Amino acid sequence: MKARRKRSANGASSNRCLGLGIIGLGTVGTGTLKVLAEHQREIQRRHGCDLQLKVICSRSVHQRDLSWLGQPVKITTDWKEVIADPEVNIVVELVGVLPTARAIAFATLEAGKHLVTANKQLVAEHGAELVERSRTHHVGLGIEACVAGGTPVLHAVREGLAGENFSAVYGILNGTTNYILTEMERRGCSFAEVLAEAQEKGYAEPDPTFDVEGYDASYKIAILAMMCFGQAVRVSDIPVDGITRIDQVDFAYARRLDHTVRLIAGARRRAGNRLELFVRPMMIPISSRLAGVRGATNGVLLVGNKGGNTSFTGRGAGGEPTGVAVLSDVVQIARSIAAGGARPTPFGYEDLRPSRIAGPDENVVATYLRLVVRDRPGILGRVCAILGRHRININSVLQEPDCEKQWLPFVMTLEPTQEKHVTRALKEIARLPFLAERPLLLPFVDLP
Amino acid sequence: MKARRKRSANGASSNRCLGLGIIGLGTVGTGTLKVLAEHQREIQRRHGCDLQLKVICSRSVHQRDLSWLGQPVKITTDWKEVIADPEVNIVVELVGVLPTARAIAFATLEAGKHLVTANKQLVAEHGAELVERSRTHHVGLGIEACVAGGTPVLHAVREGLAGENFSAVYGILNGTTNYILTEMERRGCSFAEVLAEAQEKGYAEPDPTFDVEGYDASYKIAILAMMCFGQAVRVSDIPVDGITRIDQVDFAYARRLDHTVRLIAGARRRAGNRLELFVRPMMIPISSRLAGVRGATNGVLLVGNKGGNTSFTGRGAGGEPTGVAVLSDVVQIARSIAAGGARPTPFGYEDLRPSRIAGPDENVVATYLRLVVRDRPGILGRVCAILGRHRININSVLQEPDCEKQWLPFVMTLEPTQEKHVTRALKEIARLPFLAERPLLLPFVDLP
Repeated sequence: MKARRKRSANGASSNRCLGLGIIGLGTVGTGTLKVLAEHQREIQRRHGCDLQLKVICSRSVHQRDLSWLGQPVKITTDWKEVIADPEVNIVVELVGVLPTARAIAFATLEAGKHLVTANKQLVAEHGAELVERSRTHHVGLGIEACVAGGTPVLHAVREGLAGENFSAVYGILNGTTNYILTEMERRGCSFAEVLAEAQEKGYAEPDPTFDVEGYDASYKIAILAMMCFGQAVRVSDIPVDGITRIDQVDFAYARRLDHTVRLIAGARRRAGNRLELFVRPMMIPISSRLAGVRGATNGVLLVGNKGGNTSFTGRGAGGEPTGVAVLSDVVQIARSIAAGGARPTPFGYEDLRPSRIAGPDENVVATYLRLVVRDRPGILGRVCAILGRHRININSVLQEPDCEKQWLPFVMTLEPTQEKHVTRALKEIARLPFLAERPLLLPFVDLP
Repeated sequence: MKARRKRSANGASSNRCLGLGIIGLGTVGTGTLKVLAEHQREIQRRHGCDLQLKVICSRSVHQRDLSWLGQPVKITTDWKEVIADPEVNIVVELVGVLPTARAIAFATLEAGKHLVTANKQLVAEHGAELVERSRTHHVGLGIEACVAGGTPVLHAVREGLAGENFSAVYGILNGTTNYILTEMERRGCSFAEVLAEAQEKGYAEPDPTFDVEGYDASYKIAILAMMCFGQAVRVSDIPVDGITRIDQVDFAYARRLDHTVRLIAGARRRAGNRLELFVRPMMIPISSRLAGVRGATNGVLLVGNKGGNTSFTGRGAGGEPTGVAVLSDVVQIARSIAAGGARPTPFGYEDLRPSRIAGPDENVVATYLRLVVRDRPGILGRVCAILGRHRININSVLQEPDCEKQWLPFVMTLEPTQEKHVTRALKEIARLPFLAERPLLLPFVDLP
């Protein structure tokens, strides 16, 4: 039985026909089916692989009309049947819920079948184990759809830039937050206004926490960092800060400084091969490539030692763009089976090393500090005194005209210093009696 | 002998040690050596392949100091020795001259050795033959370095977007012309001024024809079109127009229209699976991604049926960025050898079909028409009469103030119509006695 399964999974038949089983019929599952139905013939001509959809599994599959597929296909509500099906060589796992996705993924690999998954949480949290299991069982593992949907950044890092060593990667990896920020910037609206509108249009979830607090982006940057640096990054090691405190005044001040605000997920190689990881709103130059990434689009900037800066932008979500990524992984597995059994190593690195994390506090950065005060004499003097005590130099003080006395925002830009000094000073500033809200601190990052 | 060679080329030894022979020590050759020397160890850890430089061949190799390589390496002035060397598995061809590059490439494949080349002319003109020969001899063929230097766009098309079908690809593929255009735009200088400066700085060749007339870009778009559409495009089928007639006034008018001028190399799928191919200066929206590609940077925009728009920007030339691309191909070949002999198909498509070309004349486009006249009464009326006779609607007429009477440029934007109608009208307009120079026609293209 085991031998037969193995042959079924790895054996390159002469016509390269490969059976697919798709588990999960949400947005991505449906998108994948559509892309497959439409591109099947071109994929065969382009890549020489004959992909055959064999089984579809979803809890609601019996209520779905799948006649548009134009071909008979087995349906089931039990994912174990997909994996056990002798006609299925590649299992495409598109279930959103983590425990189920995890069970499917490991069962697939244990059964000696190839796995393609779009579940970022699964890959970010269990990436190293999945790689090890796929190696043991000599099967392929595709993860392109986990990061930046239809934008093939993982393939680019792993194959197209295989000869590069990276010093940093920066990404706009969450479409919802980028939509909110760029709409705030464009129209001068508040966070709450744009969020409500995005929820109405279905661009943001009813509970937007996972997106707006930066968690979604943290899974994606974990995966990108593993690929760029070969370290088994833990999501829990990534400090996360969201965009809920960004106000439209921040865009007005940012513009005066030729910058704008974006939620940046980043990983930088620091001294001693340690990684600095973060998800946080930052001040980036208005002329930078990531500042040009607008709406729900995703963008990634790779900084290489030898090749310089390379950037990618494209669709970050959506059923069909993500379906393209899923099928690209399927094709890569199919082609390597046909060629004799290449086993794409999903992270590029043969083995992920334990991660070595650098604290953000060591970072020397220029910062943007926005205070909102109830106006009275002597405010600036007291703030400056605290900053001076912490040996922080002020670069500029900006105040937009015509603000309310009781809710008066003003901005100080601070010269480069270790962030921990600013953090300490902020704790003192936060206790000042005239503050109308908690100070907002955004680092500047000098992106090309 | 043949058997031994074959084993040496394809046999996956247990430590995956692969011998490289590099032919050509110009900018790219030297850059490749530097990237290899610096990244060799990381490549081994990241991809599990032990790349060993065995032979270097160049006419001037005996005059070169290669002690910085830090390892003994054979040198020769005869490229045949590189191919014949039993320790060499992968031949890296970095010779600029086409006849030599062609001889090396075919001799390498005939000898059953893997080939990586950076020669765009070779690949654009002999791509289909090279693919056929590499298939016959079961060897790999890497071409990433031929297009957009360090920007891994070919890998992205072939692997990362393997599940996509493209409807169009647009590129800024020549760094010299993009540097000239973006400097003209930024500083309001003339073409001649910026060109002279670029030549002084070494950004442009003493004879800039190959770049500024669009020939360089035509080789690159030929390769990209082969990869995106699977047709064996001939470079001679690509109509080419350069940037020498672009004037600084065109940028002034473009700005008034929220557009800018870029040299765009493009390939679009048209009805009946025919391809429209072109290299020409075009009016693109100032907000588009390619408009943001400045200086000597390259940019590519892929329009997919299902994944939407994906764009890439990065270094388009330079020794080390191109060296990264060369090594990325080497690594891909090495990894597939180790995995059992996968043979990357350089164009993705198993077989390139004969190309089917659509004429640009069928295209319905809005156009920018710039006329320069010796001012006198009645000019506009005569031009409008000709356009009217050809049933071309005028959208707007623009004239910048304060121009000389004897060299007075003005612009008409024309509503969408088949380009052949405009071309015919232009022939009549060009005969008008008051024209101070030949009319300039630029199509608008609505890029995202």
